[in-house]
Amino acid sequence: MTRTEPYRSRSSNSNSENPGDGGASGGGTTAMRVIVPLQGVVQGRGGLFLGSVIPCAFFYFLQFYLKRNRKDEPDSGEQNSASSPNLDTNSGFPDPTRSQSAGHLTELTGLPRSLSRILLSPRNSGGSVSVSGRVSCVIKGGDSPYYVGQKRVEEDPYDESGNPDGVIELGLAQNNKLCLDDWVLENPKEAISDGLSISGIASYEPCDGLMELKMAVAGFMSEATKNSVSFDPSQLVLTCGAASAMEILSFCLADSGNAFLVPTPCSPGYDRDVKWRTGVEIIHVPCRSADNFSISMLVLDRAFYQAKKRGVRIRGIIISNPSNPMGSLLSRENLYALLDFARERNIHIISNEIFAGSVHEEEGEFVSMAEVVDTEENIDRERVHIVYDLSKDLSFPGLSSAAIYSFNETVLSASRKLTTLSPVSSPSQHLLISAISNPKFAQRYVKMNRQRLQRIYTELVKGLKELGIECTRSNGGFFCWADMRGSMSSYSEKGEIELWNKLLNIGKINVIPGSCCHCIEPGWFRFCFSNLSERDVPVVMNRIRKVCETCKSQN
Amino acid sequence: MTRTEPYRSRSSNSNSENPGDGGASGGGTTAMRVIVPLQGVVQGRGGLFLGSVIPCAFFYFLQFYLKRNRKDEPDSGEQNSASSPNLDTNSGFPDPTRSQSAGHLTELTGLPRSLSRILLSPRNSGGSVSVSGRVSCVIKGGDSPYYVGQKRVEEDPYDESGNPDGVIELGLAQNNKLCLDDWVLENPKEAISDGLSISGIASYEPCDGLMELKMAVAGFMSEATKNSVSFDPSQLVLTCGAASAMEILSFCLADSGNAFLVPTPCSPGYDRDVKWRTGVEIIHVPCRSADNFSISMLVLDRAFYQAKKRGVRIRGIIISNPSNPMGSLLSRENLYALLDFARERNIHIISNEIFAGSVHEEEGEFVSMAEVVDTEENIDRERVHIVYDLSKDLSFPGLSSAAIYSFNETVLSASRKLTTLSPVSSPSQHLLISAISNPKFAQRYVKMNRQRLQRIYTELVKGLKELGIECTRSNGGFFCWADMRGSMSSYSEKGEIELWNKLLNIGKINVIPGSCCHCIEPGWFRFCFSNLSERDVPVVMNRIRKVCETCKSQN
Repeated sequence: MTRTEPYRSRSSNSNSENPGDGGASGGGTTAMRVIVPLQGVVQGRGGLFLGSVIPCAFFYFLQFYLKRNRKDEPDSGEQNSASSPNLDTNSGFPDPTRSQSAGHLTELTGLPRSLSRILLSPRNSGGSVSVSGRVSCVIKGGDSPYYVGQKRVEEDPYDESGNPDGVIELGLAQNNKLCLDDWVLENPKEAISDGLSISGIASYEPCDGLMELKMAVAGFMSEATKNSVSFDPSQLVLTCGAASAMEILSFCLADSGNAFLVPTPCSPGYDRDVKWRTGVEIIHVPCRSADNFSISMLVLDRAFYQAKKRGVRIRGIIISNPSNPMGSLLSRENLYALLDFARERNIHIISNEIFAGSVHEEEGEFVSMAEVVDTEENIDRERVHIVYDLSKDLSFPGLSSAAIYSFNETVLSASRKLTTLSPVSSPSQHLLISAISNPKFAQRYVKMNRQRLQRIYTELVKGLKELGIECTRSNGGFFCWADMRGSMSSYSEKGEIELWNKLLNIGKINVIPGSCCHCIEPGWFRFCFSNLSERDVPVVMNRIRKVCETCKSQN
Repeated sequence: MTRTEPYRSRSSNSNSENPGDGGASGGGTTAMRVIVPLQGVVQGRGGLFLGSVIPCAFFYFLQFYLKRNRKDEPDSGEQNSASSPNLDTNSGFPDPTRSQSAGHLTELTGLPRSLSRILLSPRNSGGSVSVSGRVSCVIKGGDSPYYVGQKRVEEDPYDESGNPDGVIELGLAQNNKLCLDDWVLENPKEAISDGLSISGIASYEPCDGLMELKMAVAGFMSEATKNSVSFDPSQLVLTCGAASAMEILSFCLADSGNAFLVPTPCSPGYDRDVKWRTGVEIIHVPCRSADNFSISMLVLDRAFYQAKKRGVRIRGIIISNPSNPMGSLLSRENLYALLDFARERNIHIISNEIFAGSVHEEEGEFVSMAEVVDTEENIDRERVHIVYDLSKDLSFPGLSSAAIYSFNETVLSASRKLTTLSPVSSPSQHLLISAISNPKFAQRYVKMNRQRLQRIYTELVKGLKELGIECTRSNGGFFCWADMRGSMSSYSEKGEIELWNKLLNIGKINVIPGSCCHCIEPGWFRFCFSNLSERDVPVVMNRIRKVCETCKSQN
């Protein structure tokens, strides 16, 4: 009975059932007069209880109403011309004329075309349809120097004889195909084409990879890690690239709104792979030049708790080993500490090992997270996931194939299903089988690749040093991480982008500025040297020298 | 000043500053006593205003508090053993011991391995790490008859001579490669292998497709639509399959929680492509056998408004033409009506035309949505998006390549960027260029394919009719849509699944039950005939007869 009272008093409007209360009526404004009946309820019969409950309820229904109307409201791009009489996209409720309009449409199906156009034409003019809100993040993401530089290279690529003034690509993590060519010379083309008979490519194959290929990949991964660990083909899921592998893991391990911890500087691709389509966030954990950009467990721990405090659930940590962009290797002890951290916080660990087979010859030992997990019996393995890229070490980027290696059966099962959306193509599968299942190739290729990378790296670092540019020590991967703070006009992100612009437009070399790798210290640049031949190094040096001189004269 | 009062009165707890009000104090319960200070505020100084504002504020902060605590709560899988003293994943706030623990970890990095293990071992035992909640939808989705049947075929595939008792695949939409083989006989293998020189596959290529391939695809699409429309290569984005194309469009056109209208029965793949990773919903719009499963604009309109009423924002409608599973064609008038509907509701329209080149010879005219859009000058085209699959018509499923053809520059731009996550591989691109840019091939192949499909379709439908099974009239695509209501033990979804089980286990043929296509009437089945040779048809008929007889004897 008490419930009905307020409604009655609302409908009777200004005739309060409980007049004669001096408390607030002294205000005497129009607004006050409108809410007098409520006041009666509050102070009169229901007392405090209703005084609390009713405003709360009103507030609640108001929210409800607003939320609903907001959802229904088309955004600016979606609004049609006001002259459209049947269109009530703004109202939260069905248009009373809608069934009529719908019936109309049904009838129209059978009418001559011209008539139907005339009837509907008033609606056509002003309307513009909107796309999803999250597309803006993709479009905006494409404006970063990472993509802008790539585009410049596409438009005007350097070629020693054909286009000697073109832009040299030192941005894209691509391996030089010289090694591959050498192998092909020894293994005539037929060896590859054999795998490509029409019967081989004309039917569906398991999207997550043929078992034959998985076995070859497991063998090659072992070879790449110098046989320190043997990989189980049944724990492999193949997909059309490392970007896709990272996206699948991100989707499987975290829900929208959850986050991963990522020590920075990190791969510029994570913003795309981990975040774009998954709704997952990245919390960057800064590493500093003073610590040689090594991961501090203290900072990691702090980032974890700060995120937690903000109500963000951390689902895992993403590391790259050899690191991208620094090229440093994580020691066995580093890996154990990270694994312990993941275990203590009960989170996942994604170890990005796409450059595992590109550790420089005669340099430090690469330890795969798989090896660490394998050496211990009583370890909870299901939090460990490894990404391996078949195109990086092998100089096969066009084959679009990478692997997820996981110890978690649920993740493997879901990933296998998700590869329907990003399968490795049949020709790629057959080409890879024919190439890497040849043990001689795997062994020789990996060795050749390592020696070549070391040679180019050493030359490039030496050249940069002569120009006064120091690099951090790198043991693997395709990159130098160069300290160009001395050439900046100002020690800021703006200064860094200015320098990047000069390198691209004056020096005509495309490199990745540290900001793309989320480095918090401005002035660091990633030089990808793997695509260079030894002959290219002096050309690159001349161009950088030119930029440095321009900078000096301007500063 | 009035603002500070309530806070003071809150802190002074039960000592109300404004006692002596009879209204509600008569209640005298413990609860009432607790909120007496508030009552004082309500009725005393602040009056009605504070009486409304304070409870609202309380309510608001309560919501805030609850929301935050809920986010922090780990789900069951994440809880560690209670014996873990440092682990406070349940608390929303940092563990007071955390910095100590983190420092500990930092020190551990340098310690011998065995020690670090001992220190951390108590935490290892009971912990089990959870995966994302949305993975369950992927895993569960894999249990549908659609996937179960596919798995059975993989395990025990029919082969006329090698495994005559194996399961015949009538579920997977795959084209027979006979036509292709015929073409290859005329065009020696070299023609294809030429495109596959190492230089052709060893470097990155545009993920959204080489322009050369886009031009070839545009030409082939024109050929498939009998040159009724010319496609603009710059409006094409290539990706690694129709599933990926649908996912990209779904992501670009709708936000998580938004929905698409999909007339049913529809492709069983939409649940995966449109929903799994995008968070987008599908609202099924049922078509009925009484209407020959044609789309009713009235029902479509009703579904739109019902969704709107529930607060769900509809972002588009997905149609397939030729329809999957019925194989019917949408007339020009149908397409105009759908376009008008989309325009009137200001939503997008995705036209799935993956079987455009597989319209049966001598059958009805196929009209592409692109043609409808092209024939009118003043049309708002940016709401129209077409999906075309290069593997369906061409029997090239292993090449994993499909196309988005859109009139919306924003969608094209975002899609191009998203194809980094699902690129067409280089070998596929080169193989396709070498195959479809040959105009003689395109022309001849399309004609041969159409004739063959019509032949098998006619035979299958005739055979089914003799068994008392009627099919809806189909003009294109790979399927018969068969009415097997007569063979069901009960007219229900259970009866349908029972029949599907018999077909799979007694008849050893894998077909798709209507429930996978979201058909609301039980008893309809999708038979994919495109993969059969003419010799296979009698075998299939014998197996279905066997099942029908079993059903009759049991009913």
